[in-house]
Amino acid sequence: EVSFDAKDHQHLRYNPLRDTWVLVSAHRMKRPWAGQVEKPPEEHIPRYDPGNPLCPGNTRANGKVNSHYDSTYVFENDFPALQPDAPDPASLMPPLCLSLHVFLSKVMCFHPWSDVTLPLMKMHEVVKVIDKWAGLVEELGATYPWVQIFENKGAMMGCSNPHPHCQVWASNFLPNEPALSDRCQRSYYQKHGEPMLQQYARQEAERKERVVVESPDWLAVVPYWATWPYQTLLLPRRHVLRITDLTTEEREGLADIMRRLLTKYDNLFEISFPYSMGWHGAPTGPHLKEDNSHWQLHAHYYPPLLRSAMVKKFMVGYEMLAQEQRDLTPEQAAEKLRNLPEEHYKNREN
Amino acid sequence: EVSFDAKDHQHLRYNPLRDTWVLVSAHRMKRPWAGQVEKPPEEHIPRYDPGNPLCPGNTRANGKVNSHYDSTYVFENDFPALQPDAPDPASLMPPLCLSLHVFLSKVMCFHPWSDVTLPLMKMHEVVKVIDKWAGLVEELGATYPWVQIFENKGAMMGCSNPHPHCQVWASNFLPNEPALSDRCQRSYYQKHGEPMLQQYARQEAERKERVVVESPDWLAVVPYWATWPYQTLLLPRRHVLRITDLTTEEREGLADIMRRLLTKYDNLFEISFPYSMGWHGAPTGPHLKEDNSHWQLHAHYYPPLLRSAMVKKFMVGYEMLAQEQRDLTPEQAAEKLRNLPEEHYKNREN
Ligand SMILES: O=P(O)(O)O[C@H]1O[C@H](CO)[C@@H](O)[C@H](O)[C@H]1O
Ligand SMILES: O=P(O)(O)O[C@H]1O[C@H](CO)[C@@H](O)[C@H](O)[C@H]1O
Repeated sequence: EVSFDAKDHQHLRYNPLRDTWVLVSAHRMKRPWAGQVEKPPEEHIPRYDPGNPLCPGNTRANGKVNSHYDSTYVFENDFPALQPDAPDPASLMPPLCLSLHVFLSKVMCFHPWSDVTLPLMKMHEVVKVIDKWAGLVEELGATYPWVQIFENKGAMMGCSNPHPHCQVWASNFLPNEPALSDRCQRSYYQKHGEPMLQQYARQEAERKERVVVESPDWLAVVPYWATWPYQTLLLPRRHVLRITDLTTEEREGLADIMRRLLTKYDNLFEISFPYSMGWHGAPTGPHLKEDNSHWQLHAHYYPPLLRSAMVKKFMVGYEMLAQEQRDLTPEQAAEKLRNLPEEHYKNREN
Repeated sequence: EVSFDAKDHQHLRYNPLRDTWVLVSAHRMKRPWAGQVEKPPEEHIPRYDPGNPLCPGNTRANGKVNSHYDSTYVFENDFPALQPDAPDPASLMPPLCLSLHVFLSKVMCFHPWSDVTLPLMKMHEVVKVIDKWAGLVEELGATYPWVQIFENKGAMMGCSNPHPHCQVWASNFLPNEPALSDRCQRSYYQKHGEPMLQQYARQEAERKERVVVESPDWLAVVPYWATWPYQTLLLPRRHVLRITDLTTEEREGLADIMRRLLTKYDNLFEISFPYSMGWHGAPTGPHLKEDNSHWQLHAHYYPPLLRSAMVKKFMVGYEMLAQEQRDLTPEQAAEKLRNLPEEHYKNREN
C-alpha cells in the first residue's frame, strides 16, 4: 500500500480562522498549462509622473492638490466606496437591507516616489508606514468598530495606480471576514484558554516546515490552511491585540520582517509581486472596552500567482461553487520562499 | 434631507444563502478606470482543431482517444484535482486534516464542435446537455453525497480550452459552499415552513425589477444579494430538489431559458461572455433518504466583467479581507440585461 504524501495525495485542511476547509491537490501542478497568461507587471515606473494623482504636489481628479509630502501622506478617497453620510435605505426587501450611516475611506501613500515599493524602501521609511497605520487605527478606531487597512498591489490585483499606497476603510459594523474570524478565535479561546493564533505560531515556530521568515518578535508562515499558492500569515510572537499596541522595538522588527518577506516575494519570479494584504486585529470603537483576549493581531498576504509571473491561480468554478482548492502544498510554497535570497533582485542588478 | 436611492447611496444587503452581507456602492461606477484591461475573448475558434484534446477522435495527453462523438461526451479528467484512491493522510496537524478517499472528476463536452457555445446550440442539443447532467447526478449521486457540476467559460475564468465543456466533481463530503447553503435553507425552512428560494422566486416574479428572463417554469434574476456585477440565479418555479427531478417539459423549458439568458450575456458586450456557473441541489448519496424539503434546485452564474469586455470586477483587498463590494446595483444590472435583445449578435451578423 502507498503511504500518504501531501505532495501527491489530495486531502482537506481545516482553516480555523474561517471554519472552512481547503482542498489540497498538489499533483495538479504536474498538468500542463495552456490557458490564459497575464501581462507581467510594469517594471519601469517613473519616480515622478506629472499625471499621477498620487504624486506629491499633483492635483487630483476632484481639484484637490497633494502636499509636497516627503514621507507618508494620507487623504480622503476621491472615489470612496463608502460615503460618510448616506441616507437610510427604504427597506427594499426587509429585513434583508441595512443602512450604513458612518463611513470613512482614506488613501495612504507610503513614499513620495512612484518607483519604490515597501521592500525597496529604507527601514526607517517602512517604520513610518507602520507608525501611520497605527496612528490611523488609533484615530479612526476611537469611534469605528472596524478599521480595515489593506493594500492592493499590482494591476493584476485591481490596483489602478503604481504609486506605493494602501487604503483604510472604516465602517460602523464588523464586516463578514472579521466577524467570522472574531467568532472562530473567541470559541477557540473559550475552549482552550489561549489565543488560537498564539498557540498556532508557537507550533509553527517549532515545526519550521511552513516558516518563511522569522525574527525574535515576528513570524511569517504559509499557513497550514493557505488557499492562495503563496499566501502568508504574518504575526507577532507576543500576544498583541492591535497594531496600536506594538512597541517601538516591535515596529522596527515588523519593518524588518516585512521587507524580508516582500523581498522574497519579489525574488520568486523576479517581478514586483502582486498581492492583496491587510491587517486584522481586535475590533475597535465600542469594542475597545470589551475583553478581546481571544484576538491576536495578524496580517494576511494573498498573492494570485501560481506558476510564473504570468500564470495565476484561478479561483473559479469549483472554488466559487463548492470549495477552495490549491495546486501545491503549503509546505512546498514555504520551502520555495524560504530558500530564496533576502537581497532584492533589483539591488543585485545595480 | 436627501432620500435614499440605491443607485447613489451605499448600503448592505443580506445574502440568505450564505449568511453574509454584501456592500453595494453603486456610485463607484462614476469613477474613471485607469487600471488593468483584459484581453477580450478569442472570437475565431476553428470548428475542429487536430491539436485540441477535447475534439472528437483526438488523442488526449494520457494517450486515450476520444470517440467520434456527435452529441455530449463524458470522460474521466486526465488531470483530476480529485484522485479516486488517495491514501489516508498522516494527521499532519490533528485535528486539522482530513483524508478524502473517494473522488471522481469528469469532463463533459457539450457538442462535437469547438466553435459553438450553449446559446448558439440548437434547443434539442441543449436538452441533451441537461439530460446528461441529470444522468451524471443520478449515477454519481447514487453513492456520492455531493456532485458538483460546473462550467468555467472563457480564458478569463481559468478555462484553458475553448471547446464547449463543463466538469463534474463528486466528493464523499459536503464542500463548504453547499454545506453553508444547506444550513441556511434548512433554518429558513424550520422557521417559515416553506423553502426559502421558492418564496424568494415568488416575490421576485411579482416585483419584476430584478428579473432577467422568465418562462412558465423558470426564472432568472440578478439576486438581491448579487456580488458579481452581472451575477444571476436561475431556478424553477415549482419546488424541485434535484436536477434529476425535472420533467421532460421542464428540461425543455430550462434549455430555452438558458439559451435566452446566455444570449443576453453574450449580447451585453458583444463577446462570448466569460463566467463560472454551477448547479446546487439537495445533497445525494446517503442524503437521498433524508428529508430535504428545505432545498430548491438552482444554478449560480458568476461572470467577472464589470464595465466592458475588457474591464472586470476585481474581488481583491477589501473584498478578500473584509466584505464583498459591488459597484452597480442588482436592479441596474437586471435592467440592462432585461433590455438586451434575445437574438444572438452572432446570428444577427450572418
Ligand atoms: O480543471 P481546469 O479547468 O483546467 O482548471 C480550472 O478549474 C479549476 C476548478 O474550478 C480551478 O481549480 C483551476 O484553477 C482552473 O484553472
Ligand atoms: O479603490 P480602488 O483601489 O480603485 O479599487 C480596487 O480596490 C477595491 C477594494 O478592494 C475593489 O473594490 C476594486 O474592485 C479594486 O479595483
